Amino acid sequence: MAPAPRRTPAEEARTLVARNHVAALATLSADGSPWGSLVLYAALGDGTPVLCLSTLAEHGRNVKRDPRASLVMAETDIAGDPLDSGRVTLAGTLEAPEGQALESARAAYEAASPASELYGGFGDFTFYVLRVERVRWVGGYGRMDSTDADAFHAAEPDPVASGAASAIEHLNTDHADALLLMAQKLGGHPDASEATCVRIDRYGMDLQVQTPRGSAETRLGFAEPANRPGDLRAATVELAKRSRAA
Amino acid sequence: MAPAPRRTPAEEARTLVARNHVAALATLSADGSPWGSLVLYAALGDGTPVLCLSTLAEHGRNVKRDPRASLVMAETDIAGDPLDSGRVTLAGTLEAPEGQALESARAAYEAASPASELYGGFGDFTFYVLRVERVRWVGGYGRMDSTDADAFHAAEPDPVASGAASAIEHLNTDHADALLLMAQKLGGHPDASEATCVRIDRYGMDLQVQTPRGSAETRLGFAEPANRPGDLRAATVELAKRSRAA
Repeated sequence: MAPAPRRTPAEEARTLVARNHVAALATLSADGSPWGSLVLYAALGDGTPVLCLSTLAEHGRNVKRDPRASLVMAETDIAGDPLDSGRVTLAGTLEAPEGQALESARAAYEAASPASELYGGFGDFTFYVLRVERVRWVGGYGRMDSTDADAFHAAEPDPVASGAASAIEHLNTDHADALLLMAQKLGGHPDASEATCVRIDRYGMDLQVQTPRGSAETRLGFAEPANRPGDLRAATVELAKRSRAA
Repeated sequence: MAPAPRRTPAEEARTLVARNHVAALATLSADGSPWGSLVLYAALGDGTPVLCLSTLAEHGRNVKRDPRASLVMAETDIAGDPLDSGRVTLAGTLEAPEGQALESARAAYEAASPASELYGGFGDFTFYVLRVERVRWVGGYGRMDSTDADAFHAAEPDPVASGAASAIEHLNTDHADALLLMAQKLGGHPDASEATCVRIDRYGMDLQVQTPRGSAETRLGFAEPANRPGDLRAATVELAKRSRAA
């Protein structure tokens, strides 16, 4: 049996960027020491983050002096151990766009932060885009990888990510028997006594399985990727049917 | 009438540090550029943050090379505009404690992260404390200030912070009339038509008030600071009584 497909590190990164709008920004203070701050960001169509920084704030002055920066976006709605949840670091250089690129950046930022229609026009604010050079994704304990700017920009955010939390809750609350059968028939754990969905994405889902040999995680791939938010239901129903037929 | 007391920037910072256990860490990569990452932290009794970093992660290698670092802690459970919520940057130097100081750091960290009892003992992990040099607090739009390490360590986290969100909800849901009377009689807005509690702390509360002249914020100070979580109730009841007698 071929291993069930997973999101690539670039897809994981693009999904985290698309799902959040608050990030930590790391810049360089006057003495070269690292300065962390909280920022609101928007993402352009290729995942490029847009910021709007004031020189009244230390990060805004830092960037005027040295444009090197990195952004950390974390999973929203973390349940359980935060170190076992997703986050991504995008490192590169902040650049003030001009002309049409400035208008695109402003439009994306105003859509993410309506209040910026007011403050974005103040003279102390500058719109920036992050020219991404390095991408480091951490999905949790033992789940991490690096990727490059080309792969990051070419990847697509997971279209079902916004519905994942409610799908997981629904599966665990109402379909525990179906999950157990999937773990037994399709997940390689015929002696499983319990199965809980811990992650779901466009390509499949991860089950935490209890067996007489202990606890284990197993991955079940969907027959077809779920390409629209509504596709998760059909994809899991197909898994359930397949497990009953197996 | 004397202005109602507020938490000092040092108290705001200590409260944010005490209320969270996830932070963004900014360190310096090999080429001197800033690197952001997500960390779990614990706080010692004087607010000193404790970290546990692996050299398998870029931030752990960065710190071995250059111990300068900063941490950003944000308000948890942000409702509404994230730029109108609290965050603090602590900048300084990471130091690996030894002897009794190491044991204290380890005990604090293990209390915050039970899983660290396992990984904290691995050879690639080092416990660090942040020697705080600069503190920058931002409470929201127009609410910000800096403070120094001495004031930060001497200050106390707000003892009622953990109950603030539920107190605000209770006041707004069940005591809208009492809040309106407070705004009219004690808040300097006799023509107020509506009042909503937006923040509450050990020293008092902030009301958002609607008047024929527009919307405004007003601060009401408690007769006595609320020094224990249970004191918020008595403090707000005293305000309600005072407004009825005024």
